[in-house]
Amino acid sequence: MDAVSLDALVVTSLANVTYLTNFTGTAAVVVLTPTRVIFLTDSRYVTALADAQAADHACPDLDVVVVAGSYDGALAQTIRERGWQRVGFEAAHLTVSRFRWFEEQLTRAAGVTLIPTEGLAEHARVTKDEYELDVLREAGRRLSVAADRVLREIHGGMTERDAAFHIEACLRDAGFSKPAFETIVASGPNSALPHARPTERRLTESDLVVLDFGGVYDSYCVDLTRTVAIRPASDRSRAVHRAVLAAHAGAVAAAGPGQSRFAIDAAARDVLAAAGMGEAFGHGTGHGLGLEIHEDPRIVRRRPDVDARDEFVGPGMVFTIEPGAYFAGWGGVRIEDDVVVTERGVELLTHVTTELLELSGT
Amino acid sequence: MDAVSLDALVVTSLANVTYLTNFTGTAAVVVLTPTRVIFLTDSRYVTALADAQAADHACPDLDVVVVAGSYDGALAQTIRERGWQRVGFEAAHLTVSRFRWFEEQLTRAAGVTLIPTEGLAEHARVTKDEYELDVLREAGRRLSVAADRVLREIHGGMTERDAAFHIEACLRDAGFSKPAFETIVASGPNSALPHARPTERRLTESDLVVLDFGGVYDSYCVDLTRTVAIRPASDRSRAVHRAVLAAHAGAVAAAGPGQSRFAIDAAARDVLAAAGMGEAFGHGTGHGLGLEIHEDPRIVRRRPDVDARDEFVGPGMVFTIEPGAYFAGWGGVRIEDDVVVTERGVELLTHVTTELLELSGT
Repeated sequence: MDAVSLDALVVTSLANVTYLTNFTGTAAVVVLTPTRVIFLTDSRYVTALADAQAADHACPDLDVVVVAGSYDGALAQTIRERGWQRVGFEAAHLTVSRFRWFEEQLTRAAGVTLIPTEGLAEHARVTKDEYELDVLREAGRRLSVAADRVLREIHGGMTERDAAFHIEACLRDAGFSKPAFETIVASGPNSALPHARPTERRLTESDLVVLDFGGVYDSYCVDLTRTVAIRPASDRSRAVHRAVLAAHAGAVAAAGPGQSRFAIDAAARDVLAAAGMGEAFGHGTGHGLGLEIHEDPRIVRRRPDVDARDEFVGPGMVFTIEPGAYFAGWGGVRIEDDVVVTERGVELLTHVTTELLELSGT
Repeated sequence: MDAVSLDALVVTSLANVTYLTNFTGTAAVVVLTPTRVIFLTDSRYVTALADAQAADHACPDLDVVVVAGSYDGALAQTIRERGWQRVGFEAAHLTVSRFRWFEEQLTRAAGVTLIPTEGLAEHARVTKDEYELDVLREAGRRLSVAADRVLREIHGGMTERDAAFHIEACLRDAGFSKPAFETIVASGPNSALPHARPTERRLTESDLVVLDFGGVYDSYCVDLTRTVAIRPASDRSRAVHRAVLAAHAGAVAAAGPGQSRFAIDAAARDVLAAAGMGEAFGHGTGHGLGLEIHEDPRIVRRRPDVDARDEFVGPGMVFTIEPGAYFAGWGGVRIEDDVVVTERGVELLTHVTTELLELSGT
């Protein structure tokens, strides 16, 4: 805020609000000033806010404004009343509609200068602190427990939708408040589609089955993928799984502190290319995660056409490693774990898989 | 588009993309010109798009652009290549960040004028066509079936989270692709919180329990709330339920074609006020629904502090009627159904409830 001489910074991203204050309701706006934290929420969340404030890791000393009408109305009124003149906002978390309304209310009517900012809170969020790492470790441990059960209980004859629903029951029983995203169960030829949605197709003998799921634990997201076969696995399935597992291991090994995100991606990509499967890996190797399921750093390949500078991972950064290989009409394999970069290397947050599991056909 | 002399209108809202093209993937952008529909999506969704195009109600004749790098990059390139000069965008569905990037790429670099538009597709979406009404009727019928089962199977001793999970199983079995929002099960004092999240609290003798759930069927959302008691219901619970049911009936009766949205809200509110529960009804009476769970029209009270003009409901508009009464520390009641306005009155999409159901304690 000093660098751009702001009197106040308006935080409209709910994930950023949670990050700054530990509030977990679904509606709130925070305004940061050099000395104060102003917190706007409506009467529904006064109790939730009190709970957040009672926690060990609470944000101290909020000035609470209870919103009776519209949030934007209350925010504009607060800005006028406090007399702030240079007010930053989160350009990635305010629509042009809302911006134009604030411009009308504040710039035209009250001479306030509105200053777009980019990624201030997100930048801080990339490196997790000890509290966050503790939550993510516990979440990863619980996800591994859920995965063990999923791999024992999924079997041939279930539909993809049944299997996805069963996975969500396992997540819930493992203590997650909700799935972190729509659970993927993609079997047979569907497993060739990285973002397949579960269908009524039944898991069938010799299918590859991609199981991609995650949960939200204490507001933090974790994410895991296992690919299994319905017995008996074909030789080709085993070969593809082995190559993807080697790519996964290569990226994990490359992911120490100071490494380029492009180099980590290349470590996975090169292994698949050497196995003749370079073309079969169409997505990035990983993504950061935390309060949101997709955060920085993005572990992707360097592309000339996309404006992306290199970034180097450092201690406290948490991201997925999830290489895959997909063959249209046949099937695909993806293996995903979550890692945190440490001072010396990486620590896996989810347990490791070693071989292509073959599940019962019935 | 004629009114503001646009060469092209960029549609970035995914719900609006689905409305215009029947595409149901999770990433696409549409550009409308006076004569063409240009459709940008990535390789993951080429199959989904082909499916959408094969349906009876498909959007004819799309110019498909397959996005290889970033969507915004592909969109800017398309706009430059086609030579459009006056390009509208959806101000409510573009962040200031993305707008600034397009301004840089298109206005500064290529002299394109970017023109904010508000609610063009949303305006069309408020009045459902026959295809949409058929889908919504079927969705409402299925939600009523799910609700009947939920009311038979929920019982005392379950935790709120167990009950919510069971409701989601019922939704799934009734053919919904997913819940339309986070299922609410709020028991005892929690039922006084209109947006409570399910907790580990067990449903207990004499509790009021608010069950608010909905599903997505063929891309369309439906939404229903029932409030039950765990046997035996108290006299006060019965009295509050009776008052809310009367408010619900009042609003349904008031919701014919040509009615003011404020008047429909007032019809519910006046009944509760007459029962001495005016203060206990803190939210609006209803909201439109369709491709999204919250759409126009908003059936809310007239407020002097919020910029809201009156609107009049007409045939084909679909919205919820969901009055409630909430007493902090004691509990609350909400009753919600979905209606469509017809030429002569309203048609209920979900079945009607008549009395406070008492569920078994175990």
